[in-house]
Amino acid sequence: MRAYLNGQYLDKADAKLSVDDRGFVFGDGIYEVYRAIDGELFEAERHHRRLEHGLEALRLPRPTEADAGTLHGIALRLLRENGHDTGEATVYVQVTRGAAPRAHVFPPADTAPTVFVTTYPFKGFADLRRTGATVITQPDVRWLRCNIKTVQLLPNVLAKQAAAEAGALEALLVRADGTVTEGTHTNLFAVLDDELRTHPTTELILPGVTRAVVLELAHELGIPVREEAITEEELGQCEELFLTGTTTDVMPVVSCDGRIVGAGVPGAIAMRLHDALVARMGGVGAR
Amino acid sequence: MRAYLNGQYLDKADAKLSVDDRGFVFGDGIYEVYRAIDGELFEAERHHRRLEHGLEALRLPRPTEADAGTLHGIALRLLRENGHDTGEATVYVQVTRGAAPRAHVFPPADTAPTVFVTTYPFKGFADLRRTGATVITQPDVRWLRCNIKTVQLLPNVLAKQAAAEAGALEALLVRADGTVTEGTHTNLFAVLDDELRTHPTTELILPGVTRAVVLELAHELGIPVREEAITEEELGQCEELFLTGTTTDVMPVVSCDGRIVGAGVPGAIAMRLHDALVARMGGVGAR
Repeated sequence: MRAYLNGQYLDKADAKLSVDDRGFVFGDGIYEVYRAIDGELFEAERHHRRLEHGLEALRLPRPTEADAGTLHGIALRLLRENGHDTGEATVYVQVTRGAAPRAHVFPPADTAPTVFVTTYPFKGFADLRRTGATVITQPDVRWLRCNIKTVQLLPNVLAKQAAAEAGALEALLVRADGTVTEGTHTNLFAVLDDELRTHPTTELILPGVTRAVVLELAHELGIPVREEAITEEELGQCEELFLTGTTTDVMPVVSCDGRIVGAGVPGAIAMRLHDALVARMGGVGAR
Repeated sequence: MRAYLNGQYLDKADAKLSVDDRGFVFGDGIYEVYRAIDGELFEAERHHRRLEHGLEALRLPRPTEADAGTLHGIALRLLRENGHDTGEATVYVQVTRGAAPRAHVFPPADTAPTVFVTTYPFKGFADLRRTGATVITQPDVRWLRCNIKTVQLLPNVLAKQAAAEAGALEALLVRADGTVTEGTHTNLFAVLDDELRTHPTTELILPGVTRAVVLELAHELGIPVREEAITEEELGQCEELFLTGTTTDVMPVVSCDGRIVGAGVPGAIAMRLHDALVARMGGVGAR
């Protein structure tokens, strides 16, 4: 598999980082995951805008590769070299504050950021979508800047692992006050009293690209939406529950912590929105 | 400078990580910093116990290097090879969940953890200690498992950078409810109504080795101690304020957010405790 690291295209096995990389010692970096369909990046602009936001929010040095056209070119070349330019794939981009002797303060201004890009093959969850997914809840112990797509992902790792060990697809994260924020790598939507509900874009959730598209699609379909978080208690009262994400699309949830959600089958609103998303993707998301 | 990486002793420039290292992509790892004085590790057992706790808390695979004797041997060899076996130095140890294709869930059980060890020269803050340090406050936006010494350090980086830009040594972190927890890489003590106060060892602070030693010393010196956090409001009422840490020793604070603390000079209790710590270190901490 080929990768791009700091100006070079390499076999991924040869793409090596300094042990002083601030991504490694501090988690001092951001990342982005793009969906690629037949060599085209879906919603590339929104992903790129979020990357730009992350660079600014953390005051990361802006690498030349952050230019939309440049990054697009790197992604397309890697998709081609990895044989991922037909069918589905993902493009992974990570930028850190570079390698410098370990000190919490920002490194000298001339420290080059680390830029790593690679692609992965992708296969969607079509089979699971037919039956619907199960989820569990986990305490949301993340930091309070979840709106920035950083590599501070250890709490997500631990919650996702707990889900996997429970045989569930995803863990829903619940703050101490009972607010359900989102999944470990997905946003959460509920249908409650015929209204679509999702956490507003505060610092407690990642502003998902698929979340934004789904809100647009809901608007187009005339589905009433309220951007207000549901509570842990309301989880048990939902007519529908579903996840959204770049690699998850729209995924209906039929069971949460072992309790059946709604009618226990994929919800009608979730499936309408999934179909609309697939149409927006040009049909391939159905795979 | 020499380093140890996954079984090999190398020039640090040749110690290279996979771009798939989970330390880099998820911040999925822990670290430890030991103080070395003339080639001896100060309070090695306490540091080692904390490392063991981190491995268990995160269910990291236990590397053979986590054996206390083995780790000690690696540290001593690096101190020697780097000429850090006389005078003062620090030993840095990091363990991550290893390199594996990116997925939040734990990697296959046979994935070897990454073990990185190196040493740094160290010079204390004796000059600053004479006048006392200035600090600022910053919102404590960290995750809720601060008791584990992980590399989820981006909030610490940002707060420490804010302190540096304000000309301060350290940032004190304040939770939304007004509780002052600790510094970005130090614990915090206050003297209030002739009582020594510090945050209890909950999941909101790192259980500092120097914090534990200072509590022992306070006990020996007959200084009354209460392990109860101070509030942001109480910051302005303290008779003394001081930081403790492996590389900070006891550091009196004379100014916080531009307001003078106590009498505006290093406090008597802080200096008594610092002197006792220096004695415990065999006198070298005074440098």
